[in-house]
Amino acid sequence: MSLVFDHITLGQRVRFAAGHAADNLAAEVDRLGAERVMVIAAPGEAALAETVTADIDVTVHHDDVAPHVPLDKADKARTVATENGIDLLVSIGGGSTTGLAKAVAMTTGLPIVAVPTTYAGSEATNVWGLTESARKTTGVDDKVLPTTVIYDATLTLSLPVELSIASGLNGMAHCIDSMWAPRADPINRALAAEGIRALAAGLPAIKHDPQDLAGREQALYGAYLSAVAFASAGSGLHHKICHVLGGAYDMPHAETHATVLPYVLALNAAAAPEAASRIAAAFGSATAVEGLNALRATLDAPRALQDYGLAEENIPEAAEKILPVVPETNPRAVSRADLEELLRAAHAGSTR
Amino acid sequence: MSLVFDHITLGQRVRFAAGHAADNLAAEVDRLGAERVMVIAAPGEAALAETVTADIDVTVHHDDVAPHVPLDKADKARTVATENGIDLLVSIGGGSTTGLAKAVAMTTGLPIVAVPTTYAGSEATNVWGLTESARKTTGVDDKVLPTTVIYDATLTLSLPVELSIASGLNGMAHCIDSMWAPRADPINRALAAEGIRALAAGLPAIKHDPQDLAGREQALYGAYLSAVAFASAGSGLHHKICHVLGGAYDMPHAETHATVLPYVLALNAAAAPEAASRIAAAFGSATAVEGLNALRATLDAPRALQDYGLAEENIPEAAEKILPVVPETNPRAVSRADLEELLRAAHAGSTR
Repeated sequence: MSLVFDHITLGQRVRFAAGHAADNLAAEVDRLGAERVMVIAAPGEAALAETVTADIDVTVHHDDVAPHVPLDKADKARTVATENGIDLLVSIGGGSTTGLAKAVAMTTGLPIVAVPTTYAGSEATNVWGLTESARKTTGVDDKVLPTTVIYDATLTLSLPVELSIASGLNGMAHCIDSMWAPRADPINRALAAEGIRALAAGLPAIKHDPQDLAGREQALYGAYLSAVAFASAGSGLHHKICHVLGGAYDMPHAETHATVLPYVLALNAAAAPEAASRIAAAFGSATAVEGLNALRATLDAPRALQDYGLAEENIPEAAEKILPVVPETNPRAVSRADLEELLRAAHAGSTR
Repeated sequence: MSLVFDHITLGQRVRFAAGHAADNLAAEVDRLGAERVMVIAAPGEAALAETVTADIDVTVHHDDVAPHVPLDKADKARTVATENGIDLLVSIGGGSTTGLAKAVAMTTGLPIVAVPTTYAGSEATNVWGLTESARKTTGVDDKVLPTTVIYDATLTLSLPVELSIASGLNGMAHCIDSMWAPRADPINRALAAEGIRALAAGLPAIKHDPQDLAGREQALYGAYLSAVAFASAGSGLHHKICHVLGGAYDMPHAETHATVLPYVLALNAAAAPEAASRIAAAFGSATAVEGLNALRATLDAPRALQDYGLAEENIPEAAEKILPVVPETNPRAVSRADLEELLRAAHAGSTR
């Protein structure tokens, strides 16, 4: 059982403290010696951005943010940065906001300090995405990795419970799928396991009380680790399945991930005993499947793909589309029949 | 129970594959576009260095390496690098060799590809050290962090068993002390736990059969993680005690660490239940103390400070010297009486 891997650790600073976004941001601006700061935050988060930037000088506030980073919005933001002689980008918001800052960093080389307000995780990766005429392009570039991430769980308190749970389970899917993804290695598995532990602690606390700050902290920390692990390990079987379902049948992202995950885990667990026992340990449960199912029950998680737009007659076609993208590294061989069976179970929400 | 931390992840690539140092090194030289490579390896490792560099062009071989990186050796190596228009440093060896490459990188800014042959761990940190007239200076500088580390466990097969175990237990001390060191956080704790697991798997295998490659791989991987965790978390109580003992009574480094560790763990475990349960889980034992003691018994580890030069009459003085450097972050208060009791037990090798 030889140990062979090629692991890239991305260098980044994380400052994590509830209620301290403003002073941690001021400390980072100071540390980086920035004098002309461009703050990117969507209009809906203007008030929040004002609080977070209370202790720094801001040269430009930019709020022209849209989902999936349309190229024209990126170009506009790049022009604003250049024309104002900006030396630091500060993004305050979710994935779209971080994404726009990354688009600016990509062409200007400017450093980013990211202040996330959701569990999107983009702040912890070197992946960028741009959309032009409804076509999305993504890529990897170390220039877009934020220099520093400032996490402040109080900024996530207004994230609705339903969205928190769907987004948190999306993070859980990153962690679990990292265990057998193409570039899975012991380091990203260890971080994924820690992410599972944190999400499994945080999400039930949020379900119980959306204002539970300790629960929000655990979920935010877990979401960060899920992004680190996923960016390092790549897309495993689970993500390949969800990518096909999302693209071909226009199914909602978070709900699709939340629904498919237990079926992929059930399929792979027996063939990946070390991963399964690691996942079980992280849940503190007897088996990986039991741990995930117990969490899903507590959270009242999405349970059947038929509720989210998958028609039963599309299952054979979906299995056909997934088959060629099953990762070679998956711990067990997966046939068209396996995929059909998995999709039928997920479609109906059958207990595994 | 609020989650507050400031974590710096150092960006680095790790290529880990037994028997592949030469081709992984060639791949890195190619990836980095290096054309004038300076190879640093001590005379004792010349044959090994020749094998590892078989697939690359070497501009200069430099073998003037000495322990603790004397300043004149550093200056000499810096001159060699500059005079030869070097664009990449490749270090092949243990801590002294990596240390010399770091000294060159510090003033020249040259990147380093490190090929470690021991469990020293220096390759995974941004810490440098230099010695002038027997005075050691150390510091932190991101320029000295190797860009890439190439681990090949076959290069460690000739490391004697005694030295492997002492050095591996030194790594274990890094991991355990990281759990309550001044900058301990959930991320470096997760990496430390993974390091404990790997060292606890690898060291008994090496004790049983020094040529056990899977055991060597686990120990090498665990030593890497121990360095990552320690560099991130800083020196806890254990390292403070050993630093005083080493400095004041000229005690041997590895043996002192191996002997003191169980007593520090026994002192802190009850006051740090989460750390203790994490350590226990990593050992796969009922308690942290049991796990460490069982490993030490298997390894026939050093057990009493009296065997390594500590005189009983020095104990009160030693406790006096340690008291002011006990970290404020230690999970429990530590009095002079606690330290005396700990040192008396470690002196005699009493079972805790």
